[in-house]
Amino acid sequence: MFYCHGNAHDGERIDTLRRVFAEEIPELPIVTDHDGFDPEAVRYLFSFVPPEDYGRFPGLEVLFSVSAGVDQFAALPAGVPLVRMVSPTNARRVSQYVAMAALALTRELPRYLSDQQARRWHPVSPVLTETRTVGVMGLGTTGLASAEVLAGLGFRVAGWSRNPRRIDGVTCLHGPEGLDRLLAISDIVVCLLPLTDETRGLMDDGFFARMKPGAGLIHAGRGAHCDYPALARALESGHLSGAFADVQPVEPPGPDDAVWAIPGLVVTPHVAGRLDPEEAARNIVLNIRRHARGEPLMWQVDRARGY
Amino acid sequence: MFYCHGNAHDGERIDTLRRVFAEEIPELPIVTDHDGFDPEAVRYLFSFVPPEDYGRFPGLEVLFSVSAGVDQFAALPAGVPLVRMVSPTNARRVSQYVAMAALALTRELPRYLSDQQARRWHPVSPVLTETRTVGVMGLGTTGLASAEVLAGLGFRVAGWSRNPRRIDGVTCLHGPEGLDRLLAISDIVVCLLPLTDETRGLMDDGFFARMKPGAGLIHAGRGAHCDYPALARALESGHLSGAFADVQPVEPPGPDDAVWAIPGLVVTPHVAGRLDPEEAARNIVLNIRRHARGEPLMWQVDRARGY
Repeated sequence: MFYCHGNAHDGERIDTLRRVFAEEIPELPIVTDHDGFDPEAVRYLFSFVPPEDYGRFPGLEVLFSVSAGVDQFAALPAGVPLVRMVSPTNARRVSQYVAMAALALTRELPRYLSDQQARRWHPVSPVLTETRTVGVMGLGTTGLASAEVLAGLGFRVAGWSRNPRRIDGVTCLHGPEGLDRLLAISDIVVCLLPLTDETRGLMDDGFFARMKPGAGLIHAGRGAHCDYPALARALESGHLSGAFADVQPVEPPGPDDAVWAIPGLVVTPHVAGRLDPEEAARNIVLNIRRHARGEPLMWQVDRARGY
Repeated sequence: MFYCHGNAHDGERIDTLRRVFAEEIPELPIVTDHDGFDPEAVRYLFSFVPPEDYGRFPGLEVLFSVSAGVDQFAALPAGVPLVRMVSPTNARRVSQYVAMAALALTRELPRYLSDQQARRWHPVSPVLTETRTVGVMGLGTTGLASAEVLAGLGFRVAGWSRNPRRIDGVTCLHGPEGLDRLLAISDIVVCLLPLTDETRGLMDDGFFARMKPGAGLIHAGRGAHCDYPALARALESGHLSGAFADVQPVEPPGPDDAVWAIPGLVVTPHVAGRLDPEEAARNIVLNIRRHARGEPLMWQVDRARGY
C-alpha cells in the first residue's frame, strides 16, 4: 500500500500519481487521509511532513519525501530508507529564481522598490554582472544548476560545499575556512544548503558580519538556516544592501511576523522551486521497481550526513 | 572648440573627456557652461538636452548625443550631422536589466511584492522561462543584446522592427501587422524603440488591449512611448499582470505623480543603461578624427528616419 500523507496529495499531484501508478504499477494501491485503511498495510509513505507517529506503520519499507530537503524526517527509524525528491526540472526552476534575485540585487532593485514607495528618484550607476561574484552555498542539484545559469549571465561564481569539489568555471571552496573565504569574496551569497545539524542557524550575526559591506543575500534553503532578526540587523545597519528570502522558519509567517517589513528584504512564498507532479510520480515508480528487484535506491539519503 | 552642454559634463564624464582628449586630440579645447567662451567658436556640441537656441552656434559641425536616443534634437538644423551614442557595453547593461525584469515578471514578483506589503503568503506554481515568449520591440544594439541574453535564459524570443530582419533563434516580425502578431504571441513585451513620430504614444489603451491576458510589460524606451494612465488601467483591470518602467514622460516624476502607485508597476529611475564615460570619450575622439579626415561618421543619425 502506498500512503500519500497529509498535503502530499494536494492538487493535481494525487491525480497524476494515480494515473502513472495505474499505467506502471497497477498492483500497488494508493491511499490518502480521505480513505479508511489499515496502517499496518502501509509499505510506502509519501510525505512532505513527518507523520505524528512512525510506530503506526510497522511495515514501512521506504519513505519518499515530496521535497529535496529531508531535515523534517530526522525521527524516521534508522532502518527505513529515506528517499529525497531529486528533479532536474525543479533544479532549473530554482536556478531561474536565483538568477532573477542575483540580477535584481546587482541592479539595486530593493533600493529602488523602497525609493518608489517614498516617491524618490535616485538613480545609481548600473553595474554589469561581470563585476560581481556570486557565492553559492550548497553544490547539490540546485546549486550546480544555479552556478551554471549565473555563469551564463556573466557573473563570477564561487561555490562552497562540505567536501572538496572541482567544477569548471566555479571557484570551489569547502570547510569552515572555505566559508570564510566565500563570504569575503562574494558580492551576493546564495543559500541552497540542506538543513542539517551543521547548517542549522548558520546565517547569524557573525555570518553576516563576515560578508562584504554592501553585499546581498539570496536564501532559498530552509527557514531554520537563517536567524531573521540577525538578517534584519544586517540590513537595517546598511551592512547588507538587500536580500531575497523564499523560506521562513514557520510557513506561512503570521501577519504580525516582523519578517514582512524588514527593510531591503523581498519575501517570496516558497516558490523558488516546486515539484512537477509527473516527474515526482515517475521518480517514485522508478524507485519502487528498484526496491522490488532488491536494487539500491536512487537519491537515498545518507542518514548520518543528513542529505 | 568642443562644448559640453548642460549636464553632459556631469560627474566623472568631463574628467574622462579631458584626459582622453589630452592624450588623443590635445589641440581641441573643451569648454563647459562654467567657462566663458565665444559660442561662434563652437565646432562640436556634446549634449543630452538640446540647447535653447541652435542659432548661437553658427560654426557647429557635429552634434554628439550623450544618449542612444536622439528624439530631443529634432530642431537641430538639417545640415548638421547628429551622432547617437552607441555602446556595446551599455547595450549589455540594458540587456541585463531586461533579463532581470523578464525573470521577475515570469516569477510573478510584482504580485509577491504587493502580497508582502499586505502580509499575505499566496504561492503560485512557478513556471520555467521555456514556457514564455518575450517580444522585443526595437532591434537596434540594445534590442539585439537583450534578445541574445533572453534566449540564453531559455525564453522563446520574438522581435519587431520597422524593416524586415532575420536573426537566428528570434521570430522576426515587422510593420503594423507584425506588431499585432507580436502582441498576440508575447507573454512579456519589451520596449526598446527609438522615439520617433511613428512610435510616440505607441503604447496606449488599444496596444495594451491587444496584449495577451496576464502578459507583462518592460518599458526601457522613452517615457513618451507610453500612455501611463492607459498602462494603469491595464494593470488595475488585471489584463496585464505586472510591468517594469524605467522611463517617464518627465524625469524625475514629481512626488504627486500617479505613476509611483500604479498597482503591479515597478518604477526604476532610468537606470537600465548608463553611458560609460571612457567609452563615450573614445567614441567621440574616433568620430572627430573621421570628421577631420572627411570620412563618414560612425553612428550618424538618418534625420528623416529619426534614428
